[in-house]
Amino acid sequence: MTYVNHHAVPFMDRDFLLTTPTARHLYHDVAASLPIIDYHCHLSPEMIARDHQFANITELWLGGDHYKWRAMRANGVEERFITGDASDRDKFMMWAETVPYTMRNPLYHWTHMELRSAFGIEDILSPDTAADIYDRCNEQLRRPDMTARGLMRKYGVEVVCTTDDPVDSLEYHLQIAADPTFDIKVLPTWRPDKAMTISSGTDHADYLAYLRKLSEVSGVEIRSLADLYAALRVRHDFFHEAGCRLADHGVTRFPFAHVTTEEASTLFDSVLRGEPLTAHEAEQLTTAIFLELCRMNHASDWAQQFHFGPMRNVNTRARLSLGPDTGFDTIGDFRAAESIAAFLDTLDRDDTLARTILYNLNPADNTWVAAMLANFQDGRIPGKIQMGSGWWFNDQLDGMRHQMEALSLQGLLSRFVGMLTDSRSFLSYPRHDYFRRLLCEIIGRDVDSGMLPVSEMPRIERMVSDICHDNAARYFRF
Amino acid sequence: MTYVNHHAVPFMDRDFLLTTPTARHLYHDVAASLPIIDYHCHLSPEMIARDHQFANITELWLGGDHYKWRAMRANGVEERFITGDASDRDKFMMWAETVPYTMRNPLYHWTHMELRSAFGIEDILSPDTAADIYDRCNEQLRRPDMTARGLMRKYGVEVVCTTDDPVDSLEYHLQIAADPTFDIKVLPTWRPDKAMTISSGTDHADYLAYLRKLSEVSGVEIRSLADLYAALRVRHDFFHEAGCRLADHGVTRFPFAHVTTEEASTLFDSVLRGEPLTAHEAEQLTTAIFLELCRMNHASDWAQQFHFGPMRNVNTRARLSLGPDTGFDTIGDFRAAESIAAFLDTLDRDDTLARTILYNLNPADNTWVAAMLANFQDGRIPGKIQMGSGWWFNDQLDGMRHQMEALSLQGLLSRFVGMLTDSRSFLSYPRHDYFRRLLCEIIGRDVDSGMLPVSEMPRIERMVSDICHDNAARYFRF
Amino acid sequence: MTYVNHHAVPFMDRDFLLTTPTARHLYHDVAASLPIIDYHCHLSPEMIARDHQFANITELWLGGDHYKWRAMRANGVEERFITGDASDRDKFMMWAETVPYTMRNPLYHWTHMELRSAFGIEDILSPDTAADIYDRCNEQLRRPDMTARGLMRKYGVEVVCTTDDPVDSLEYHLQIAADPTFDIKVLPTWRPDKAMTISSGTDHADYLAYLRKLSEVSGVEIRSLADLYAALRVRHDFFHEAGCRLADHGVTRFPFAHVTTEEASTLFDSVLRGEPLTAHEAEQLTTAIFLELCRMNHASDWAQQFHFGPMRNVNTRARLSLGPDTGFDTIGDFRAAESIAAFLDTLDRDDTLARTILYNLNPADNTWVAAMLANFQDGRIPGKIQMGSGWWFNDQLDGMRHQMEALSLQGLLSRFVGMLTDSRSFLSYPRHDYFRRLLCEIIGRDVDSGMLPVSEMPRIERMVSDICHDNAARYFRF
Repeated sequence: MTYVNHHAVPFMDRDFLLTTPTARHLYHDVAASLPIIDYHCHLSPEMIARDHQFANITELWLGGDHYKWRAMRANGVEERFITGDASDRDKFMMWAETVPYTMRNPLYHWTHMELRSAFGIEDILSPDTAADIYDRCNEQLRRPDMTARGLMRKYGVEVVCTTDDPVDSLEYHLQIAADPTFDIKVLPTWRPDKAMTISSGTDHADYLAYLRKLSEVSGVEIRSLADLYAALRVRHDFFHEAGCRLADHGVTRFPFAHVTTEEASTLFDSVLRGEPLTAHEAEQLTTAIFLELCRMNHASDWAQQFHFGPMRNVNTRARLSLGPDTGFDTIGDFRAAESIAAFLDTLDRDDTLARTILYNLNPADNTWVAAMLANFQDGRIPGKIQMGSGWWFNDQLDGMRHQMEALSLQGLLSRFVGMLTDSRSFLSYPRHDYFRRLLCEIIGRDVDSGMLPVSEMPRIERMVSDICHDNAARYFRF
Repeated sequence: MTYVNHHAVPFMDRDFLLTTPTARHLYHDVAASLPIIDYHCHLSPEMIARDHQFANITELWLGGDHYKWRAMRANGVEERFITGDASDRDKFMMWAETVPYTMRNPLYHWTHMELRSAFGIEDILSPDTAADIYDRCNEQLRRPDMTARGLMRKYGVEVVCTTDDPVDSLEYHLQIAADPTFDIKVLPTWRPDKAMTISSGTDHADYLAYLRKLSEVSGVEIRSLADLYAALRVRHDFFHEAGCRLADHGVTRFPFAHVTTEEASTLFDSVLRGEPLTAHEAEQLTTAIFLELCRMNHASDWAQQFHFGPMRNVNTRARLSLGPDTGFDTIGDFRAAESIAAFLDTLDRDDTLARTILYNLNPADNTWVAAMLANFQDGRIPGKIQMGSGWWFNDQLDGMRHQMEALSLQGLLSRFVGMLTDSRSFLSYPRHDYFRRLLCEIIGRDVDSGMLPVSEMPRIERMVSDICHDNAARYFRF
Repeated sequence: MTYVNHHAVPFMDRDFLLTTPTARHLYHDVAASLPIIDYHCHLSPEMIARDHQFANITELWLGGDHYKWRAMRANGVEERFITGDASDRDKFMMWAETVPYTMRNPLYHWTHMELRSAFGIEDILSPDTAADIYDRCNEQLRRPDMTARGLMRKYGVEVVCTTDDPVDSLEYHLQIAADPTFDIKVLPTWRPDKAMTISSGTDHADYLAYLRKLSEVSGVEIRSLADLYAALRVRHDFFHEAGCRLADHGVTRFPFAHVTTEEASTLFDSVLRGEPLTAHEAEQLTTAIFLELCRMNHASDWAQQFHFGPMRNVNTRARLSLGPDTGFDTIGDFRAAESIAAFLDTLDRDDTLARTILYNLNPADNTWVAAMLANFQDGRIPGKIQMGSGWWFNDQLDGMRHQMEALSLQGLLSRFVGMLTDSRSFLSYPRHDYFRRLLCEIIGRDVDSGMLPVSEMPRIERMVSDICHDNAARYFRF
């Protein structure tokens, strides 16, 4: 049975996702060529500093991509072809076998957008084409312009913010900044989760080990909560000098428990003595440290990101055999509105609330999160409180669309700082293109259906360029 | 770069939101001209009684509209141009600057629908047109037909239900009813939230002050819970005589805690003595009073509305400087299904469950709320238990659409009592038009795509007129 | 006013729900004629064994259908015309009066799909046509091919799995299996809810009565938790011999509380003595028994289904007068992600996690449930952990669409085992057709809009046949 349909729109052509004239106009004439500010990612600064050359497409594509790993496991692929000791070629072949089964998953679009934009390969990846594509990609990856830096240049990247621990030396960031041959900004992001994650019912061995490291790099001996804050402030200043203007805070349940400075100090002393805390006490101490970290962000005029809602490493067998961040994290269904409101209010009350971006992992929370922003917009900075673009499991057409719909309806889409990759891969920049096409489709369709006035086109074009690039440039002040 | 697209549907034209022939038929030939029953709003009865003439468009538009205030704050507008001491002209200019940034927010549509329907102004509001529009609106507002009553007549309003406290004198409602020159019904709605909101951990000073007022207006000295009920019943009867047929009850978390009459009486005695209650005790007493209020509604054959889910005044700084209802309320993510089921069941068991409308603020709750209705439909009144139209943050195209989809799929859309403004503004009636266009679009599109039979058109037309007007007329019995 | 629209798509024609060429191709050339594997339903095996002939359309349609009952109650129909003593003819007339009010509810489509596919009646059911349709249906129901078995044959059913209690004799399943004249597989499903549902605060009278029955049929005296497990294993083996390859577990809140074997045994001893448990203890014991039941499923290489989230019998008056399962169950808003993750992890850790299908009742949970699957896919069985098709209140176009969107975006739609009726009616098979049309529309539209490559059509066709039939055949191993 051979099926022919000459009316089908070609797959992923020039007008991919763009179904109306104004959508196409906004994309091609406004959005497509804007540079990329990728203000949140997990790229390795070392690979950028060394301008890493990839051994092959398997390293580049499958080396750290837990999205692909999850798809392969769901498709019945053995672990040794995923994170195990199979050859790079065999791993690629197993991925190619899985690809046709990912139809309708974002991986199917990402895969082919990446093949097209990085390698100029327009074939569909499947077992039929796998060997050929493997060879063609690898041949290209031997070229000097297909390195870590080369890929960033190819995609028009202007700024990248990595994700870094306060104890990190930032040596690679400093190297990159000092290199006159490379003019893409690669800035650190302050991610002090380990300094504020206090667990209940433990002897705090991991936490105390972390404090020792922090003590060492900061030169501050930590004998009290005040010392912890001093040590963190030393490192906060160090990050600032290295160009950092952005913090990131990740939590499972968003914490908020009333606590006085004295109570927090006393609880911290217990932790230093290795004494277990109750769940409530742990939440109190976490709240205190988290608030103090936010006050540092405000004092340094940084923006801050709150990522909340994931349940991490829920598969014990995999955690023990493969370690963390191997594709066994998931979406929680925690309540968070009261905690977030109280947390933001606490900072707002003494005017220490920095520019803040809220990222919810559970899309069922989109509307209340979008509504939350307005309660803490202070009339001094346009879009001061932001809703982050569709995060992690929501980083696909539906997730991005629903985030933008919620933001549009509850707030000001016009003031949105837009897309980020959140990725570990140098091949993820097409996700900005994916986002831009969707944005132009949404707005263009509104114009062409009489929902927005075509007579306001200059303002509508500016809205698109603002969301794709200019808002982020103004908001982050890198 | 000048962009021209002759194929774009004109902005907000005669067929705004209506994309299929049957959608247009249903709107123009059935829905458009039906009178408006606005069974829930926050209009000032005093302004209607005095037939208020507006000083200017700023008073009419920005005087009490926290939707606009939130948008202006998010856009970086200083508070003095919002609720502060800036001139009315300057406030309007700042609003006009914000309007282009509200594209895709319902404010953008509302603004232009109101300019068109009330003032015949078809220009797009922006800084370019602001001065001209300001002058033209103000000129018109000096006309004798552009008063509070004039606007209500202009929009074809038949009935309006305001929102009133049991201690209210209803003097303006009585004046309006006695005025033979004005034939729009303006009825009070019984909203006794203050009588049932018992907080834990306080000395109940506010509550006791409220009881004193209630005592005074009812002539019943309140020395026991039975006295409270007696006092409320006096006022309930007074409201009934003033034409009230509808109650409204607002809660943050929907309360339900098992409690006996004796326990409730004892707890109330503690409150009278200014003794703090635990959270559980406060919920018990609230449950008891709430149930009793619902029994009064049933005894008087009223309908009752339950609005649940908002977190109010979450910004302390704003609450202290600007007061309540200034745009710092938000959507909570509370669980409510068990409480609501138990609450309704308690009333149903002794056959004291009045006609009831459930309004959820968190749209993530739409489906379970829509499914909840059927558990308490008793086969005696069609559509006895209703799901309220998209409330507050959901009062926009998506919110209304999702409410209607949930109701369609879990219940009977045909029996829906339809739209209400919930507004403080005399310019909000275009929201009924917005709703009717959407309703006709949804149903008309179903017909034109073969989802509903065009042969049943007379029934489909009746469904539209029922939802836009007739169901409410039958259901509320005003 | 007579409305004519010649451009409207005819209602429910050959291309019902299919709006693009590829959608139509996939449906007509691939999906339409595939046999049905209805792996979860509530049909009566006795009616199949006896090849029941229906007295009339009222028995067939209204005898046990709580969807219709709920709609009738919402439409103001008295209970005696629903479950009461009115004549079958009068009940049908009241249903026919209700049908026009169900427009946009799935009942409207189901009703007319069933009339067309089973009876060849293309008229629209309403009071106008009710008498005629009643007579024509009843006439046909007297034909020998319109029996329970006849209807199953008519719809191309290949396998049916009923829902059965461990104490059930399975006599009718055995009769059917032994009947050489009937080649549709009718297999039991093991549903041991009564063996694991321990309530807190009771004397366990119902539970102990159930244990006595279980003891009797298994021949194992139950004096300890180990005895309970032994008794259940006897019955599990008996079900296996009768062809059962599938378990089903229904819970309101998904239980998970840490518990040791010793603790569970002690708690069970308390239950045997009729001593009340605390809520936590009840959850511990339920967890222990549930885990053990899952281990039995794994040991027998069965698949297992988890249905979670309903609140049952929330209307006390109806429960007392009409009994359970009469249309007074509803959607809960419980949190479940942590419990489910911990539960699955516990089984995965000792490699006793069977193939598992998760069904959430609250569609607000769709995304996190879809994301949960991947955490326990083990790379040995494609699609080992499944998300069940839109369940109960979600068994309609939107519900099925949202389930498939969530699964597509978070997992592999290609590996989905597809549709089931979950129904008590022999007329529900058109729901498979409804599902297949929707599936083909979703995928076909993707192809025709350039979201999927038309060049991959053979793979896309296989994806459709896999989801409609072949995946289930491979997954369940009946």
